[in-house]
Amino acid sequence: MGFAQLTSVADVITWVDRAFAGHLGPERLPIARAAGRVLASEAKARTDAPPFDRAVADGYAVDAEATLGASIYNPLTFRISGSWLSTLPSATAVACGSPLPTGANAVVLRDYGQEDVAGEILELIEPVAAGANIERLANEFARGTLLLRGGRRLGSAELGLLAEGGIGAVDVVRRPRVRVILTGRDLAEAGTELPTGAVFDANTAMLRGLVERDGGTLEPCAVDRCSNGAIRDAVDAPDADLVVVVGGSGLGPNDEPVLEALGRPGDGDGDGLWTHGIALRPGLSTGIGRIRGRPLFLLPGSPTACLWAYEMLAGRVVRRLAGRNPELPYAARDCVTAGKIVSSIGFLEVWPVRFVTGDNRVEAVAPAAPDGSGGLFPTIAEADGFVLVPEASEGFPPGARARVYLYNKPKPGLGDV
Amino acid sequence: MGFAQLTSVADVITWVDRAFAGHLGPERLPIARAAGRVLASEAKARTDAPPFDRAVADGYAVDAEATLGASIYNPLTFRISGSWLSTLPSATAVACGSPLPTGANAVVLRDYGQEDVAGEILELIEPVAAGANIERLANEFARGTLLLRGGRRLGSAELGLLAEGGIGAVDVVRRPRVRVILTGRDLAEAGTELPTGAVFDANTAMLRGLVERDGGTLEPCAVDRCSNGAIRDAVDAPDADLVVVVGGSGLGPNDEPVLEALGRPGDGDGDGLWTHGIALRPGLSTGIGRIRGRPLFLLPGSPTACLWAYEMLAGRVVRRLAGRNPELPYAARDCVTAGKIVSSIGFLEVWPVRFVTGDNRVEAVAPAAPDGSGGLFPTIAEADGFVLVPEASEGFPPGARARVYLYNKPKPGLGDV
Repeated sequence: MGFAQLTSVADVITWVDRAFAGHLGPERLPIARAAGRVLASEAKARTDAPPFDRAVADGYAVDAEATLGASIYNPLTFRISGSWLSTLPSATAVACGSPLPTGANAVVLRDYGQEDVAGEILELIEPVAAGANIERLANEFARGTLLLRGGRRLGSAELGLLAEGGIGAVDVVRRPRVRVILTGRDLAEAGTELPTGAVFDANTAMLRGLVERDGGTLEPCAVDRCSNGAIRDAVDAPDADLVVVVGGSGLGPNDEPVLEALGRPGDGDGDGLWTHGIALRPGLSTGIGRIRGRPLFLLPGSPTACLWAYEMLAGRVVRRLAGRNPELPYAARDCVTAGKIVSSIGFLEVWPVRFVTGDNRVEAVAPAAPDGSGGLFPTIAEADGFVLVPEASEGFPPGARARVYLYNKPKPGLGDV
Repeated sequence: MGFAQLTSVADVITWVDRAFAGHLGPERLPIARAAGRVLASEAKARTDAPPFDRAVADGYAVDAEATLGASIYNPLTFRISGSWLSTLPSATAVACGSPLPTGANAVVLRDYGQEDVAGEILELIEPVAAGANIERLANEFARGTLLLRGGRRLGSAELGLLAEGGIGAVDVVRRPRVRVILTGRDLAEAGTELPTGAVFDANTAMLRGLVERDGGTLEPCAVDRCSNGAIRDAVDAPDADLVVVVGGSGLGPNDEPVLEALGRPGDGDGDGLWTHGIALRPGLSTGIGRIRGRPLFLLPGSPTACLWAYEMLAGRVVRRLAGRNPELPYAARDCVTAGKIVSSIGFLEVWPVRFVTGDNRVEAVAPAAPDGSGGLFPTIAEADGFVLVPEASEGFPPGARARVYLYNKPKPGLGDV
């Protein structure tokens, strides 16, 4: 009964980080479709910015030297460009951002000059320094400047910077295609009638959200878990970058066909499960291995166990394949425990917690369910985040410092509708 | 020259929070397309979970009372369901998750029972307590239970929970349609050849990313900024939820047609700009008002000023319309300044900063550009985040505590490709 030996989460992470160290190859996208993607290679400016000397204020572009000596007692006059006068030095009306005309090296602020009624003559009563109110060509960056390194996630401002540099399309890391194979029986789709003895399938909806959040795309399929051949065929799909089998991860008679099809640990040194049974709760019955050299995960069918096995292990690989940071994609905050959080030595345990009075104190949500997994309801609806209790720890006493990974919930009174 | 009076960012926020307090109405979506959206109303379970009494371990479902007295000296025998024997109490082989047969109230773990060779008789040498290894109908939640409140953002686990509760479609807050009207002249699209005197348009790409991040969709259009009528037509678009005019926000002659078209502050008490000129740097020339009762923003054409005017002001309204938390969508961390950060009293200033040696020390990136705005390059490429220097502050001395809003950059050595 039970797994003879459990592999520690740390050992699993070491193994998957070595076995699947790289990200996928690039695909080329216009920047309008590249938001949130990860640059596969560096992006260099295709133009100077600004591409010319320009005014950075509304006013008159002049040769600064011609303004020397101007004062209230000695107003100097300039010919406004476009006028017919030609014996005076030139002044050109410019708007903020527009190119400087040849010969100009400064901009006099609009209110510092006085035009005549005809708009042909400008009078200045103060000199202006060379370089005043202008920005030189390539001041921000020159053509060829490294704008963004490979690996950079393209947020909004990054997209603006690429556009400013004349870059209309970029090489981004391809989205991992994640094949999710449901082996569960008596699963119904939410929104339909529930047949007797069936449950609604929570895992497809959840895994779709998780995989898309991590930069991948989901290709779900369902197979008869009793058919060894059907499972092998589903797993063999040559176009998947990562294969996730959900359900059939236990050690009962119903699970055997799945394990047979995937290949038990120790069956060979190539394809199949490398390990089965992880010191993670919820998520103990997770298996990890390779299929055709690609990552293979066997996740528990219980939604909460499936969630944490994905977040801690499978998601790590999805995120890495997508060029993302492989660590848990949650903001974290150090908090103080308001009550005991109990954990078993030998397991990395995930405990949903909620904030109690005060902003920084948390307590555990609901006791664990009989199978040690709890449901999605206490995990998600009633919690504000979760803590990880390390393998060597029995948990936290009240008043201990604990790192809380935060769910993205609206703050009280904000965003609530 | 310049704005006679600047409105403080705090006053602008108070005004927009009052003027545009609500979110948009709902639309109905299948949960497979609802990831990241915000629930417009509460979601209640359509089913019990679990929908039946079920086994939570592989084993034999029995009536616990029939096992009383079982011991190594007094093995008790049960008829395995499906066999022809009928004089013995019944035991049914069950897998983890499957329904309990009628009359059973406990599950004996598989390894605790001994089957005969024919698989017809089960022998038990230990009693089992009622309720052992089973989960009762509706243990996690009952039909009608409030699963998620309105305003909840639908992450992956939330989608799983909705599916578990039989909810196949939900009412989510509609995406705000943001009409972006570019009034800039001599703008070229990135990826094309740059005509003389033109610059690449960074704002469309950047605003598309920002608006999509905040839950909206972008409808860009370009107009001739000299045509009062064209601007009015573009602004009047009846299907937009929020109108953003980019460029023409200054006080020069080139800006006048835009201000004329929108309606200057004080022109009336209905449509038009409520204020123009904000104590925000970069972003000083921002204008804010109403058009047909909907939010209207006039943003500077300089990309960095446009970025911060969006993040601090326009984005706040987009996020609120989308049902999101209106606050800045950046993780923040308290850091120590490694050098001086200089700011002018009377302005809320945004300063890009970068981390220096050590994880928690930051210094300002590059001095401000002549127009006080800086470019996207120092703001984004060379920075790790930004600090906000309040209006009443002259900045931070070295060693001061400052809240740093973090860009989503890969950690050194992680995710870098």
